[in-house]
Parts: sequence; structure tokens; C-alpha cells
Amino acid sequence: MHWREKLHEIIYEADTPKGKAFDVILLIVISLSILFVMLDSVQAIYDEYHYFFYIAEWVITIIFSIEYILRIISIKKPFRYIFSFYGIVDLLSTLPLYLTFFFSTSYALMTLRALRLLRIFRILKITRYIGASNNLATALKRSLPKIMIFIYAVIIISFITGTLMYLIEGPEHGFTSIPVSIYWTIVTLTTVGFGDIHPVTPLGQFIATLIMILGYGVIAVPTGIVSSEYATQSKQQSKNTQSCYNCGEKEHKDSAKFCQTCGYSLNKTPTD
Amino acid sequence: MHWREKLHEIIYEADTPKGKAFDVILLIVISLSILFVMLDSVQAIYDEYHYFFYIAEWVITIIFSIEYILRIISIKKPFRYIFSFYGIVDLLSTLPLYLTFFFSTSYALMTLRALRLLRIFRILKITRYIGASNNLATALKRSLPKIMIFIYAVIIISFITGTLMYLIEGPEHGFTSIPVSIYWTIVTLTTVGFGDIHPVTPLGQFIATLIMILGYGVIAVPTGIVSSEYATQSKQQSKNTQSCYNCGEKEHKDSAKFCQTCGYSLNKTPTD
Amino acid sequence: MHWREKLHEIIYEADTPKGKAFDVILLIVISLSILFVMLDSVQAIYDEYHYFFYIAEWVITIIFSIEYILRIISIKKPFRYIFSFYGIVDLLSTLPLYLTFFFSTSYALMTLRALRLLRIFRILKITRYIGASNNLATALKRSLPKIMIFIYAVIIISFITGTLMYLIEGPEHGFTSIPVSIYWTIVTLTTVGFGDIHPVTPLGQFIATLIMILGYGVIAVPTGIVSSEYATQSKQQSKNTQSCYNCGEKEHKDSAKFCQTCGYSLNKTPTD
Amino acid sequence: MHWREKLHEIIYEADTPKGKAFDVILLIVISLSILFVMLDSVQAIYDEYHYFFYIAEWVITIIFSIEYILRIISIKKPFRYIFSFYGIVDLLSTLPLYLTFFFSTSYALMTLRALRLLRIFRILKITRYIGASNNLATALKRSLPKIMIFIYAVIIISFITGTLMYLIEGPEHGFTSIPVSIYWTIVTLTTVGFGDIHPVTPLGQFIATLIMILGYGVIAVPTGIVSSEYATQSKQQSKNTQSCYNCGEKEHKDSAKFCQTCGYSLNKTPTD
Repeated sequence: MHWREKLHEIIYEADTPKGKAFDVILLIVISLSILFVMLDSVQAIYDEYHYFFYIAEWVITIIFSIEYILRIISIKKPFRYIFSFYGIVDLLSTLPLYLTFFFSTSYALMTLRALRLLRIFRILKITRYIGASNNLATALKRSLPKIMIFIYAVIIISFITGTLMYLIEGPEHGFTSIPVSIYWTIVTLTTVGFGDIHPVTPLGQFIATLIMILGYGVIAVPTGIVSSEYATQSKQQSKNTQSCYNCGEKEHKDSAKFCQTCGYSLNKTPTD
Repeated sequence: MHWREKLHEIIYEADTPKGKAFDVILLIVISLSILFVMLDSVQAIYDEYHYFFYIAEWVITIIFSIEYILRIISIKKPFRYIFSFYGIVDLLSTLPLYLTFFFSTSYALMTLRALRLLRIFRILKITRYIGASNNLATALKRSLPKIMIFIYAVIIISFITGTLMYLIEGPEHGFTSIPVSIYWTIVTLTTVGFGDIHPVTPLGQFIATLIMILGYGVIAVPTGIVSSEYATQSKQQSKNTQSCYNCGEKEHKDSAKFCQTCGYSLNKTPTD
Repeated sequence: MHWREKLHEIIYEADTPKGKAFDVILLIVISLSILFVMLDSVQAIYDEYHYFFYIAEWVITIIFSIEYILRIISIKKPFRYIFSFYGIVDLLSTLPLYLTFFFSTSYALMTLRALRLLRIFRILKITRYIGASNNLATALKRSLPKIMIFIYAVIIISFITGTLMYLIEGPEHGFTSIPVSIYWTIVTLTTVGFGDIHPVTPLGQFIATLIMILGYGVIAVPTGIVSSEYATQSKQQSKNTQSCYNCGEKEHKDSAKFCQTCGYSLNKTPTD
Repeated sequence: MHWREKLHEIIYEADTPKGKAFDVILLIVISLSILFVMLDSVQAIYDEYHYFFYIAEWVITIIFSIEYILRIISIKKPFRYIFSFYGIVDLLSTLPLYLTFFFSTSYALMTLRALRLLRIFRILKITRYIGASNNLATALKRSLPKIMIFIYAVIIISFITGTLMYLIEGPEHGFTSIPVSIYWTIVTLTTVGFGDIHPVTPLGQFIATLIMILGYGVIAVPTGIVSSEYATQSKQQSKNTQSCYNCGEKEHKDSAKFCQTCGYSLNKTPTD
């Protein structure tokens, strides 16, 4: 077997011992990388272990760079990989550190920090290792257009009630502008309720009460939609699987007596 | 074709290129209008771009005025349009600015601000361009009477527990009056929880705990209702209605080609 | 017709014009009564209209007293009414004011205030005028035992995590005692989140995160139960109502060909 | 009957009067024990009744110790009990107080407090007395793998948006580090919304708005899953399985007396 085929097996397939080991190591490196990005942002930890994080970041970036190059080398159609979702994620996992060279002196600290934090997107590399629940995905995809209408309704309601609350409460009670009032309305409608802004006038509190009860009714809609679509989805999957001995068609209804594809009796067996 | 018919086609129908262009332009103008109303309310932006917003408001109002007049001219029964939902929305989209002339000197700033903000209702003009999800609307309409009973129950509960909390916590812990206590109960029952008012005494916290757990149970009700009604709705729509011409059996799956009860081909018609 | 029968018709039945008028007047008096109790608790309104509320309370109490006496007189079995739910509610609607005589001088202000607020329970008198949604009530009744287990689980979780949070955060961060910590856990688990108490230590915030995600999963349970029970309930009601011409049995399945009660063919009509 | 058999009957079975009495007494002792742990943590109560709680704790610990020993003696396979869930819970219910002897002088107060609070786990002893709702448990077990994927999605989203918010708002607005920002994102996504940290910049508030609406959509997923699985579960259980001995048709309603397909009496058996 050619070395490229071997490499392909190790990197892209998980059913050989070497392939499994490769995946496990990569998962550990990704997890460590994300952990380091997170801890690096805690001031107290940064002050103490700054140098360690700097070294670790270089090691991890080099590992990901090697992985990226190996993935390109070992695949037949490298461009398809490069422009795929995971290809872009893999590239973004290595770039930030290299880019800091170009910006390190002239540009502001903000750009640097933004670049360093881009590394958090490495978490998307993990999704590769989760078997996608197709059932769930299909239900979500089917619910999407209806949920969009619902989100649109939420936006309409929050624009109108947000403006109303701005008019009633005004800047003196924290509703400093219409965008802020809309932000407050969405905070209330989704039952989050931070409490950073809250109505003070009786009329404002009364309208807030209406928004909350409306939010209650509104929350029922996406739940109902996903719930119903998911139920339909799983029902279709769990359907009786009596198969036709003539054409092999499997998806018949429980009460079916004849194959819906070829009309052959479902009760007959090959031995008849 | 008469010019009025042509106009009608452009304004009321969206399937010709000109009609589509008209709709797209209008959508952009509406969106801009709402954006300007929102930005106008932000003090910092208002201070800088006040004059620009003033001009823009005039341009937009004139555009909407022309649209309103054209809609009346091009339709056969103008009164039906004028008193329809969108007719009133269209009128309200133009009026505010004109009305400011009458109030500008003598009346207070409050009235002016209220009038200016009325323009936010222009957002309702957008609903014209959203294909209504009849399925969703029917489910909501059917759920409404049951949700009303549920809302009534929420009100009863919040009146009684609100009074109870007023008695227990009292004005010294923020529950200044019964209406305010009822407002707090609804904030809690709907799981919004601003935190502007919160129980301080052990008994008050205990009752708050009960309200929260009750709110949990209560939230299940509208969700359950909408969920169930929506499921019924979508089930009825998704039912394939191709019936067998031999035995009359109706409940076939979408993919069925032969009757599941008698094995007769579903594609054959009596005329075959 | 005897005067007691006439009175019974007016008070207990709503299908005659006089009965309807009686109900409408009573509803208005109840609503006014509740409104006055609420407004009376607002300090600013109380200061101004104290005397008016005092008079109004006397008028309303006398109206309810007359109503109570008339209800007892006009019914055949007065004791069944007196000890019924509405009998007790009606009595409690009149008592508070009379009781203030006995406590007015010697007892504390607290008792008086409590008594005055008891009047809010008059709101329960309104439930008489709402047609109970039996469908909803049955679904709730059937869900109750399962929801009880769920509430029990919530209590177990909040006792354990409450104690844990008390240990981690301690009195210095607002978790002053285990009962307070349990209160906080329920506030968090039910996604209310007042923010009066919140974790400050990293470990506390991490456990709070777990509780919130758990709360998310937990909220799904009662919703799922009510949703499912309600769906079952409404499905059974909406069932095909083809009735048997032999025995009158109505609840047959869609696919039924013979009556499930007497075995008579459902396709036969009396004219056969 | 041997004394060990008698003891087994009293301790492990609840259908004899003595067994019932044993269970009731134990339940009371457990409840008192938890109540004491809770009250003991309230400073004001601790100061007054400290000595009483100390004595009570000793009495309760001795009762649980005796119970633990009796359970081991009266069972045939003591090791299976000792390493079972309830065996460990029972042991942990007695240990804390004994362990305080070893730590009382040399170790810190913290360890002692932790040990004392371990007693709250006695609440798990109560689960023994609740008939598990198998229906609910099965639905939850079946939903678990799908809910895990959903929780994973929540974690991915909160890591990315948490980092984004840290970048936008920064330490000066309370988002002191990435872990804290992730904590805030989960607080927001689960609609808890403490308000201890909240966005201040317009961009931060806009992204917060997106997170909240996303959280709305996301909350629908576990609810939909549990709801659907529970419905499937209860449907399968509630299906009447009385079958017709004539034609074999199985799906009859509970009230059916005759087969709906052939009209044969459902009460007749082949032996009639």
C-alpha cells in the first residue's frame, strides 16, 4: 500500500487502531487548545502562566499546521477539502498565530486580541467527531421556515412595543433610545429578564405585564412546531417494517395487506 | 391597456417585473424609514445627524403619500381599501409628519414625540410581503379560546398571590402596593425575573418558590395546547388523499403506487 | 309561580333576561370591589380617596351580604350551598368588614390589613361565570401524578445543589443559609433568575451553569407530559362520530365497519 | 418464623402493619434530619438552638446506624446491599458525624462544615419510598442521547458567543474573562438572566438579542424530544390489545365489544 493511502486511512478513517489513535490525540490537543485560550483570558492565571501559554500556543499551532498539510497531501481532491467547512475551520485554527507577526508592531492591541480569540473556533473541529443525529437535523430543517415567521412576528412585536415603552418610560427610567427599548422588549419577551432596565411607571409595568404574558404564548409556538415536526419524523422512522418478498419495499403502513410499490400480497412468503 | 389597469398591476400584483421592482423599492423605503426612527431616538446620533433625519423624513413621507394616493386611484373600490387593515396602516404612515404642523407651537413636546414615534407602525406595512403561514395561523386561532382560559387562570393566581406577597413582604421590601405585587407575581410566574423587586423574608421566599414551580407547570399548558393543535393541523394537511378506484381505501402513503387494501393500481382511473 | 322560584331563576339561572341582568350587575360589583382593594393599597391614591374607598367598601359589602342571604333563601338545600366552594367564597366576601369591628381597637394594624386584603378572594366569584374547559381540566388532572414526581425530583435536586452552593459560595456571597441557597437553586432551575443572589466564585458559576442546563432539560418534562396528555384527550374527542343505526353507539374508529357495541353493520341505514 | 426473616419482613417489605410502621417512622426521622441540617445553617436559629441540634444529630445518627446494621444483618446477600445505591446512601447518612472525631482538632472548620452538610444526601433515602414512574423514566432514557447532542450544541454556541462577547464588551463591562463570558452566555441562552453581568455596548446588546432569540429556538428542542418520546411511550402502553378470535384484528378501542372488522363478538374465545 502506498504511503498516501496509508496516511489517508489514518487521518480520514477511524476504524483502524492507528486512525483511532490519531483522532484521540487530535481531540485532546483541540480540548487543551480551547482550555488554554479560556484560561489565558483570566487575568490572574495570565499573569502567572503567561510564558507557558505562549509556548503551548506555538506547539499546538505547529501540530495543527502539520495536520492541515497532511490532510491536503493525503486526499485525492485537495481543493474540495480546502473549501469545505472543515477545511476552512482547520485553516482558521492555524492562521491566528502566524498573522500576529504581520500586525504585532504597527496595529493596535485590539486586533491582536481578536486574532488570538479566533482560536476558540477550533471547537468546531470537534463536531467532526459527533455522529450527526439526522433525525433531529431533519426535524429542525423542516421547522425552520415556520420558526422564521415566528421570529419575524417577535421582531414586529418588539419594534412596536419597544417604541411604546420608550414613549412611556423615557430616557429617565433607563429606556434611553428605541434600540435600547427593543433590546429590553426582547429580553422580556424571551423571559430572560436581566433587570438592568425595568419599567418604573405604573403604565410601563402594566404593558410589561402584557408583553410577558404574550411572551408566554409566543414561546409555545417554536416549541410546538419542533415538537410536532420531530414527532412526525420519528413516527415515520419507527413505522412497521414489514417488507415485500417480491420487490423488497419496506415502508408499509401497519394495516397494509398488499405491497404499495408492486401490489404483491404482503402475507405471502417465498415458500408459498 | 388602460393606465389605471397598468398601475393596478404594478402596485397590487407582484408577478410582473415592474410590480416586483415596485415592491422591492417600497420594502427598502419602509426599512430605511424604521431605521431612521430608531436612530433618531439615540441622543448621540440625533445631535449629529438631526438635519439629515429631518430631510429624510420628509422625503419618505412624500413617497408614502404618493403611494397612498396611487393605491386609491388604481383600485376599483377605493373605500374598501381605505377602511381595510393595510389602508389604515398606509394612512398612519403618512399622517404623523403632517399632523406636527397643527401641534407644533401650542402643544407640548410629548405629543410631538408620540406622533413622530407613530411612524414605527410602518413596520406593519412589511407584513403585506410575507406569505402568511395558514397552517400556523389556523393552529393559533384554534388554540386561542383555550389559551384565554389559561391566561385567565394566570390572572386569578397573580391577583391572589400578589395580594399575599404584599401582605407578607410589605412596602418596606419593595412590594409598595397590590398592583406592584401583582406585577412582580407575573414577572415571576412567567419566569422573566427582572430582580427589581424580590422577596426578602423567609416566608416570602418560600411562597416565591411555590409560585416559580407553579409557573413551571403553568408554562406547560399553552405550549401543550399549541403543540397539539399544530400537530393535528399538519397531520390533516399532510394526509395523502389519493383514493383507490377499486375499493375506495383512502389512507395511502405519499409513495404508494398500489392500494394497500386490495392491491389495485392507484394510477388507474375508472376510465382506463 | 312562587316568589322563591322566581328568585331562584334570577340568581341561579342565566338564560332569562332578569337572570342575565343579575349576573352582569354582580360581575361589575365584583370587578369594582377588586379594583378598589388594589387602588386602596397604593399610598398616593389612598391618601386622596381614603373616605371614598371606605364608603364604597360598605356599599359593596352590603350588596354581597344581600346576595348571600338571597342565595340561601332561594335554594332548596341551603346547607349544600353554604358548604360548597362558592358558598364559602361568598361568605368570605362579606365577612372581612364585619370582623374589623371586633378587632378594631385592641388588635394590631397587621390583622386589620390582612382582613381587608382577604377581600381579594372575591375574584374567585368570577370563576362562576367561566365555562370550564373540560378538555383542558381532564388533561391537567391526568398529568398531575406525573407532574408531582417531576416536582419531587426538582425538590431533591434543589436540596442537594442548594447545600452544595451554600458550601461553595458561603454566606459572604449572599448564600446566607441552606434554605436561602435552596431558594436560589429553584430561582435558577425554573429559569426565573432574579439576580438578588448570584454565584461569584468560578466553581459556583460552573455549578450554576450545570443547574441551568439541567433546568432546561427539566422544563421539558412537564411540558411534554401536559402536551402529550392534551393531545390524547383532544384526539379522542375529535374521533369519527359515525353512529350505529341499531344501538346509537357513536365512538367508532375511522376504519370501523361494524358497530363495536352491538355488531350491527355501520354501512346499513334504516332505509336498507 | 426465624427472627431474621421477621426483621427482613419489617425492614424490606411494606405490606405488613409492622413494615408500614417502620417505613413511616424512618420517613419522619429522615425529614426531621434534613429539616435540622437546613435550620442549623441559619445563623439566628443556630445561635439559639445550637445545643438542641447537636443532641438531635446524635440521636438521628444512632437511629440510622442501627437501621444500617439491621439492614445488613437481615438480608441474605449483605454485600449486594452494601454496594447498592441505597446501601451507599445509608452508609453516608451515618458516617459524617463519626468522621468529625478524626478531624475535629487538627483540620480546618471547612472540612467539618462540608462533612456536616453531607447529611443532606439523606434526602436520597426518600426516593426508596416513591414508586418510580417507569413510563416517564423510559421516555427520559430514550431522549437522553438526543438531549446530549443538544447540550453539546449549547456548549459549542456558548463557547463561541462567549468569546465574542468577551471581545466586544471586555473586562470593563463585567465580562472579565472568557469563562465568565461563557457563564453569561449560558445564563442568557437558558433564559435565566440573573443580570449580574449584562451587555452595555450597542453591539453587545445586539448580539445578546440574537442569543436570546436563539435560546428561544433552542429551548424548543429538548421539550420537543421529551414530549414526542413520552407521547410514543404512553401511546404504546395505552393501546388495547384485545384481538378478535375470528379475523385477528387487534386495534380495538377499550370499550369495544364486537370486532370492528368482522362484527364477531370480542368476548368469545375459540373454546366457546
